[in-house]
Amino acid sequence: MQDLVFEQEIAGRIELYDISPEDAETNAVIGNALVSRHKRGQWTFHAKASLEDALSGSDVVFVSILPGDFEDMAVDVHAPEAYGIYQSVGDSVGAGGLIRALRTIPQFRVIARAVEHCAPDAWVINYTNPMSISTRTLYKEFPRIKAAGCCHEVFNTQKLLATVLELAGCAPEGSIAREEIHTRVLGINHFTWIDRASWKDLDIFPYYKQFAARYAEEGFRDAPPATTFATGGAGAEDPEEAARRRFFSSAERVKMDLFRRYGLIAAAGDRHLAEFCPHAWYLANPEQVEAWGYALTPVSWRIANQNALKERAKVYREGRATMKAAVSGEEGLAIVKALMGQGTLISNVNLPNQGQMPDMPRDAVVETNAVFLRDRIEPLAAGELPVDLRALVTHHVLAQEGIIEAVFEQDREKAFRVFSQDLAVQTLSLRDARALFDHMCAKTLRNGAGGPFRAG
Amino acid sequence: MQDLVFEQEIAGRIELYDISPEDAETNAVIGNALVSRHKRGQWTFHAKASLEDALSGSDVVFVSILPGDFEDMAVDVHAPEAYGIYQSVGDSVGAGGLIRALRTIPQFRVIARAVEHCAPDAWVINYTNPMSISTRTLYKEFPRIKAAGCCHEVFNTQKLLATVLELAGCAPEGSIAREEIHTRVLGINHFTWIDRASWKDLDIFPYYKQFAARYAEEGFRDAPPATTFATGGAGAEDPEEAARRRFFSSAERVKMDLFRRYGLIAAAGDRHLAEFCPHAWYLANPEQVEAWGYALTPVSWRIANQNALKERAKVYREGRATMKAAVSGEEGLAIVKALMGQGTLISNVNLPNQGQMPDMPRDAVVETNAVFLRDRIEPLAAGELPVDLRALVTHHVLAQEGIIEAVFEQDREKAFRVFSQDLAVQTLSLRDARALFDHMCAKTLRNGAGGPFRAG
Amino acid sequence: MQDLVFEQEIAGRIELYDISPEDAETNAVIGNALVSRHKRGQWTFHAKASLEDALSGSDVVFVSILPGDFEDMAVDVHAPEAYGIYQSVGDSVGAGGLIRALRTIPQFRVIARAVEHCAPDAWVINYTNPMSISTRTLYKEFPRIKAAGCCHEVFNTQKLLATVLELAGCAPEGSIAREEIHTRVLGINHFTWIDRASWKDLDIFPYYKQFAARYAEEGFRDAPPATTFATGGAGAEDPEEAARRRFFSSAERVKMDLFRRYGLIAAAGDRHLAEFCPHAWYLANPEQVEAWGYALTPVSWRIANQNALKERAKVYREGRATMKAAVSGEEGLAIVKALMGQGTLISNVNLPNQGQMPDMPRDAVVETNAVFLRDRIEPLAAGELPVDLRALVTHHVLAQEGIIEAVFEQDREKAFRVFSQDLAVQTLSLRDARALFDHMCAKTLRNGAGGPFRAG
Amino acid sequence: MQDLVFEQEIAGRIELYDISPEDAETNAVIGNALVSRHKRGQWTFHAKASLEDALSGSDVVFVSILPGDFEDMAVDVHAPEAYGIYQSVGDSVGAGGLIRALRTIPQFRVIARAVEHCAPDAWVINYTNPMSISTRTLYKEFPRIKAAGCCHEVFNTQKLLATVLELAGCAPEGSIAREEIHTRVLGINHFTWIDRASWKDLDIFPYYKQFAARYAEEGFRDAPPATTFATGGAGAEDPEEAARRRFFSSAERVKMDLFRRYGLIAAAGDRHLAEFCPHAWYLANPEQVEAWGYALTPVSWRIANQNALKERAKVYREGRATMKAAVSGEEGLAIVKALMGQGTLISNVNLPNQGQMPDMPRDAVVETNAVFLRDRIEPLAAGELPVDLRALVTHHVLAQEGIIEAVFEQDREKAFRVFSQDLAVQTLSLRDARALFDHMCAKTLRNGAGGPFRAG
Repeated sequence: MQDLVFEQEIAGRIELYDISPEDAETNAVIGNALVSRHKRGQWTFHAKASLEDALSGSDVVFVSILPGDFEDMAVDVHAPEAYGIYQSVGDSVGAGGLIRALRTIPQFRVIARAVEHCAPDAWVINYTNPMSISTRTLYKEFPRIKAAGCCHEVFNTQKLLATVLELAGCAPEGSIAREEIHTRVLGINHFTWIDRASWKDLDIFPYYKQFAARYAEEGFRDAPPATTFATGGAGAEDPEEAARRRFFSSAERVKMDLFRRYGLIAAAGDRHLAEFCPHAWYLANPEQVEAWGYALTPVSWRIANQNALKERAKVYREGRATMKAAVSGEEGLAIVKALMGQGTLISNVNLPNQGQMPDMPRDAVVETNAVFLRDRIEPLAAGELPVDLRALVTHHVLAQEGIIEAVFEQDREKAFRVFSQDLAVQTLSLRDARALFDHMCAKTLRNGAGGPFRAG
Repeated sequence: MQDLVFEQEIAGRIELYDISPEDAETNAVIGNALVSRHKRGQWTFHAKASLEDALSGSDVVFVSILPGDFEDMAVDVHAPEAYGIYQSVGDSVGAGGLIRALRTIPQFRVIARAVEHCAPDAWVINYTNPMSISTRTLYKEFPRIKAAGCCHEVFNTQKLLATVLELAGCAPEGSIAREEIHTRVLGINHFTWIDRASWKDLDIFPYYKQFAARYAEEGFRDAPPATTFATGGAGAEDPEEAARRRFFSSAERVKMDLFRRYGLIAAAGDRHLAEFCPHAWYLANPEQVEAWGYALTPVSWRIANQNALKERAKVYREGRATMKAAVSGEEGLAIVKALMGQGTLISNVNLPNQGQMPDMPRDAVVETNAVFLRDRIEPLAAGELPVDLRALVTHHVLAQEGIIEAVFEQDREKAFRVFSQDLAVQTLSLRDARALFDHMCAKTLRNGAGGPFRAG
Repeated sequence: MQDLVFEQEIAGRIELYDISPEDAETNAVIGNALVSRHKRGQWTFHAKASLEDALSGSDVVFVSILPGDFEDMAVDVHAPEAYGIYQSVGDSVGAGGLIRALRTIPQFRVIARAVEHCAPDAWVINYTNPMSISTRTLYKEFPRIKAAGCCHEVFNTQKLLATVLELAGCAPEGSIAREEIHTRVLGINHFTWIDRASWKDLDIFPYYKQFAARYAEEGFRDAPPATTFATGGAGAEDPEEAARRRFFSSAERVKMDLFRRYGLIAAAGDRHLAEFCPHAWYLANPEQVEAWGYALTPVSWRIANQNALKERAKVYREGRATMKAAVSGEEGLAIVKALMGQGTLISNVNLPNQGQMPDMPRDAVVETNAVFLRDRIEPLAAGELPVDLRALVTHHVLAQEGIIEAVFEQDREKAFRVFSQDLAVQTLSLRDARALFDHMCAKTLRNGAGGPFRAG
Repeated sequence: MQDLVFEQEIAGRIELYDISPEDAETNAVIGNALVSRHKRGQWTFHAKASLEDALSGSDVVFVSILPGDFEDMAVDVHAPEAYGIYQSVGDSVGAGGLIRALRTIPQFRVIARAVEHCAPDAWVINYTNPMSISTRTLYKEFPRIKAAGCCHEVFNTQKLLATVLELAGCAPEGSIAREEIHTRVLGINHFTWIDRASWKDLDIFPYYKQFAARYAEEGFRDAPPATTFATGGAGAEDPEEAARRRFFSSAERVKMDLFRRYGLIAAAGDRHLAEFCPHAWYLANPEQVEAWGYALTPVSWRIANQNALKERAKVYREGRATMKAAVSGEEGLAIVKALMGQGTLISNVNLPNQGQMPDMPRDAVVETNAVFLRDRIEPLAAGELPVDLRALVTHHVLAQEGIIEAVFEQDREKAFRVFSQDLAVQTLSLRDARALFDHMCAKTLRNGAGGPFRAG
């Protein structure tokens, strides 16, 4: 929303759909107030009562949903703790990510069918986790869809690489924009790798190697927090912000450890990376997590944060305060502009594998660079991962494919098999794995219409 | 050897090479005595002092070696127990299999080069474990080699299926030969799967389903022991035989459990199957192994058994006793005959993937059926594994490829990375994994010439 | 039919459907008379009024149709002659084969849908030309179909190879059965290649090389006629038989010329092979055809022959003569028995590419060996063609895929593009190619319902 | 050379190697004079006596050679005319292109080995025809080479598309730079296709369709000449320039005809496109060529032009005239800058297929877009060609692979087989094809050392 205020070249109409009509309405009010205050009348916001209404006539569709609610997510993240399985995020992979997928896939099938009927030529930009699974679902349900999954995790790594160069004296502090850091990206969302990186005529790898040699043990705390979005204030950090920093920032130790062992730069926050590795490495227990310099994000914090955000939205809606506009650092608007023919963008994106990663299964959703142009997103050939990382990535790619098949085939036992083979769950006995699966399903899945499996 | 006695159609000269010249000589003496006693003068045995001598002029080469000695194998199998990792065999996969691979690969490179120079058109029939890795090494070192890996594990499963039919009343007990059981085989050695099975016009799957329903919990002890070879005696079982039964037979519970969960018939002994699965399932600790109805084979038993065999060989060599000839049930001779143009054989075999398993990496050594004909072994297209089993098999295929690359590239750190990602080892912290790897390497690898890694 | 008389192991009910109900009835009468005369009451024949009736309850379905009638075929074969394009058969490939495909594909879509609805688990054995196109259509319309295309051309080449060995003195004349000749087969129907061939322990290639050196120029006329089916009589050849010999036999010169240039044994009749090669090689004009020792089969002969066959059928039906039973040499019954679980058969067959020819597009229908077993036909990995032959085969594979796409997409212009790129048609100017295409379509295609393209 | 004068950001040393040392020296003198006159002392030119000397220490290597001399090329182009085969260029494909390849491949093997030994990390930018074959040879000889083939034909098509938009009134005449035309490029060099094209927010295809409807019959002569390089003068056209226009310009009728039939935009000059199609379409005889609005380039013109260029070089070298510097429109310098880390470039380029065209054989050299960055050229996934164009492109790809194999394997008969299957040559009888092949080889190939085949 805020980026639109600063946009000069394109204009449009934004239709909002939310399963809570009131939230859609609130957002429309806030959006319209914001643009009118900044004299950007070319943008208007409209809340819509149905998905079909919102989609019809669209050129670009953004999807960002929470599959289920935070109580479901509390089960995703915390229920496995009873079995010794800790998760730092629990939304992409692992026990939590797979159960969340069981809620996500049916919803994305609905969305894909709605796009097919109401806006088959629109671009669908997806920001929902689990990213690979939700994007793959769109294509599996409606193969001609034009969809892409976008995520800012690689951007944060690019910012870190800029900092690395600045620390090494290649440029003054804060002078390198992350867009100047050219990285070759390959892998899957939240477990993405960089095997080439340059800034101008410099190869970044030797600098990163020095950096890791220096900081791998003690950690690097000056790195920017894992997400800088919505960080508004300055001065003395308010408690809300302190909590956010605590749960989202990291000492980059996981990233550096992976680099020292594998030689490639892992391009996601440590919280995510840890979940895609064998859990004994970085997630064995809370003490180990702390020792590695990152944090388990409790869902209780998310609930509190959501309440605060809702409260603030209410304040904005009622005009008791005005929202400040600031450039977000997200690329959503740049993508829209490129797709509309305004400029060319090269960035990382999640797309079905059509040859960009020849060592991954065809049609699996992989994350690589792509060129964004008028009505086109074309991935760059990214080469192959070394065999050891290929093994780790393939584990997750096949789990993602498996959980999607399980829902499409309404096969609860297949879902359990995939769950039981998960890196973390496979440390449990079959009996415990079954008990955990049954518990998580019972707590978070609505069977019958809209649920992943037929009742019975 | 024994099969030759009964062979009527072909004849030949057998040259024996062993790193122990004395053992080769012993075997030659025994072999010649055996065939002369049975008036099979068309076969002669000759001990050879060098690999090159033995290979030159050969049409078919059999390779069956123990990489290293049983003290090394004791480290393979038992060293990980200190870290809670139990292994039932430890020769194909897992911590033990991978370290054994580090000893095997350099030896098979030597063999491949010797074949290239001395017998480039000969067929190489490999019986060595780790089977997939050793066979793949032959092709990687000498891509034009004509090599195949053979193993009897699938045969035992075919025997079990015959028993299943007999128990169901389809045929009188003992009346179905295992060769009549037609199975479609796909996967990798010791983790091979059957997704189609028939006898005459019967589909075996419904019968196996009933069988598993009946016996999955209590186990099926009347099944033939996992290996029947060399089981000579009758009457009261001698202690040696009792130990063998104890360590090699199983209640087939692992196999039936896998069937009940995955719907395919696992075609190897439970001891092998367990090692290819997450270790929490069947190998968490000795008690769990016992509960599942199979056994951990202690290397001490192998050492004792080897001593007994050597003693018996000495007896045979010195003429103090005569070896009895019995048909072995192995297919080695049938394969030789087919390759020589005597009949056509369809059987399972380990070969580089040239399309027979389109969901596995090209050139990985996979186990499927093949047709054996004059100078040809042609694999049958075996289709794809279901995505969940594909994930388990792919884990091992990439580990196998990774450990081979590590040796070819002399990259000890890559070997460690592969080791650390192993299904069982990945339950350890990185520190423990490193300690275990270093210990096992130090105990069993000779660096420098002939070792997998350069000294230093 | 005749083979059934000699069959001892299986029995069944044969339902006949023909677009001419009278013909179906005639065949049923003849069939029942034949089996009752030979006391084979276990087989019964029944004419059915609809395709659906005939299919319902079937285990195995045989499809052998003439797409259109012989007047259409006269256009296929002879219309291009006005433009200097001669065709020896005109039913598989080239201008005639592609136009015939436009009639065939819609009919096979109907058959595939009928199988899907009435007998989805039945095996469909297809004997219709164009073989590759009609078999591929079945799978494209109903992907789960169990269909295979069978053809005896390779058998004739195997007979020739037996003769080659007998001529070389390897065995007495007539002593080698074609089933003893083991060939590795790869390519597409009627343009199939043998790159390995053996009989017992002999490699046939050196003998074939000598044979070609001896006969390539003068031709080899003692070879069996290209088809021996239905050749009944002995003694002085009757005129009908003489005409058949004239149009179907060859001097094998095309086959030998291809061998001398490419080093592989072409495994189809010269009449077919010539059509798959650049037409300037063997089909430039009738004189060149004669010089190469084979013949252009005029459709007028086919019409006369059909009339004679119908007349003979009438005679049989009315009991004025009795049909003699003789073993046909076709494999249809052996295939049925293998699929029913009676024995194992290895033979060549046309199946979608699932890895058996890794250098051909996935799903293209290719001809290789396969193993036939209870409810299974599993192709053998056949390796790759040399790059020059791969180019020729790929030309036809892509034309086949293109003409099928054109019909499925109702795209007449795509059909023309494929036609215009055909090896023979591409020697015409675009204007002539268009005129020929329009003429052939106008004469042989019924648009609208059942036709390949929408009226328009 | 001329572009360097205007270059501000990079500097360097240019070493020239030519099989004629005098020509290298001449070029060095001219280059140094040019840069010193323009005060660009940061660039220096040096003639080198050996390839190894020139390569050592290089960061970027440009290769642009004439394989053989113009007398050889006269044979390539004109010898087939005796058999009715006309060629408009004769350097990439067809009879002339394949024979030229037999001279090119051995030279590029030498170059690849020299790069391997003297500059293994340098980028090799290749401008030599046959482009696909010479670039593929570099990779086949030295697989780790960093090489790319560059060609300006697509640029000319982009210029045409700019003109199309200007004619349609989308922008003032001459206002659209070709770099603003975004095309998706796929295919092979000189037979390259555009399936997506946009300018800002406009889809160019509808405009091009109108353009083709308007001009397909009469031709479009205002299009820029097929090559604008070195066209210096203004005012009354001099005879030299008139000849050039006559032989290189076209009415774009071939391009428009292909568009009207296939729906994709062919992205090369008509002279090239015609040669990649069946010759009866556009190259049946000189009259047809003229009717289609383009020309056969006689080698006599090339010889005269070369003499004129050499004369002019002499004049420059002796200081009797000064070379004028003008921006060339070629991208060589922009590529160098991007590879050195100065900016990012997206352009079309010839690279081994690593997934960018999944319907073409792996490792075949294909032409698609790529991103040029510091030390990287990464192709964009370009999707698949429609099946009809795929057939035409595949024909040439396999011929290219075949002729390369023939030279690497020293197999003259394989070279003949590939030659005989060429689109134009396959219209000849085998006897004529053989005679033409033998004649062309005899006239242009030096056997023995450096020749493609062993003497004998």
